[in-house]
Amino acid sequence: MARWQPDARNRLAAAALDLYEERGFEGTTVAEIAERAGLTKRTFFRHFADKREVLFSGTDELERLIVDGIAAAPATEAPLDAVVAGLAATAEVFDAERLPYARRRAAIVDANPDLRERELIKMERLSTSIAAALGERGVAEPAASLAARAGVTIFHVAFGQWVGGEEQRDFGALIERTARELRAVALA
Amino acid sequence: MARWQPDARNRLAAAALDLYEERGFEGTTVAEIAERAGLTKRTFFRHFADKREVLFSGTDELERLIVDGIAAAPATEAPLDAVVAGLAATAEVFDAERLPYARRRAAIVDANPDLRERELIKMERLSTSIAAALGERGVAEPAASLAARAGVTIFHVAFGQWVGGEEQRDFGALIERTARELRAVALA
Repeated sequence: MARWQPDARNRLAAAALDLYEERGFEGTTVAEIAERAGLTKRTFFRHFADKREVLFSGTDELERLIVDGIAAAPATEAPLDAVVAGLAATAEVFDAERLPYARRRAAIVDANPDLRERELIKMERLSTSIAAALGERGVAEPAASLAARAGVTIFHVAFGQWVGGEEQRDFGALIERTARELRAVALA
Repeated sequence: MARWQPDARNRLAAAALDLYEERGFEGTTVAEIAERAGLTKRTFFRHFADKREVLFSGTDELERLIVDGIAAAPATEAPLDAVVAGLAATAEVFDAERLPYARRRAAIVDANPDLRERELIKMERLSTSIAAALGERGVAEPAASLAARAGVTIFHVAFGQWVGGEEQRDFGALIERTARELRAVALA
């Protein structure tokens, strides 16, 4: 086995997903994931803190994309517009190529209460980060927290439609449409 | 000790709160709560599933008040207006008398990651129940989910101001004001 394995992380993630589907998340061990990937447990732990993090490591990148997108929005942009721009920036990763993985991951998370809790915690953390990014733009409270939570709501609903829909749809367009729908609900 | 103890539940809850403050939530056992209340563990488990539920048993009543308030709103009321009416109905329990307890409870929950997770799960469940109540009123998706999540956001922010504020404020008025602020954010 070559010592230099640039794709170790991807192989571990693919093996984990297969095993979570075959045996369930609870029924899978780190040793089994490493074995399936042809790697050691030691290598697994160099890439992931635990077997749960295989499914959640992407959320840090997600948060960064959103927060950077908010920071990059024109200073004159209203808080919720800046948040929507940040959310739409994630269309870069949530593309057609990612959809099959996202669907498999969503099914695994939905089937396990601990993973659903973990998802809630990550969304709560995202809300805090968005509110902080708005604070940096000079948005006061409670507007920053309200716009941040409205943003997480838009993300949550749009993401559910993206992974749950029959056909493949553009994630950025779903974010924009869901933002309009939320505004319509708030205006009614 | 009299066999008939109508206030057993309240005595257990008060003893639990005292002990969580004195020893921390983690450092307190059900046996200690029962002893402090002058009751048995058996009696504790007749009232609460575990020591965590002492802090969360009120959320079922909360959910009922909100869902009933939504159902009672005039049929012509817009979805978010019906949700706000339901949320404002909880001012019945979140009154001046309840505030000292709510503040103590919030401090205990904030200090413990497991309890904060539990709170997130209860809020997520509340969101699902509100969306279902809107569905019963004929509100379609995604408007029902969006109005429900907007409602939970309003509740969360208003509740934070109620327990976190220096003076004592009317919870119903805080709900109404936060709803106006969310609408302003959505409109901007």
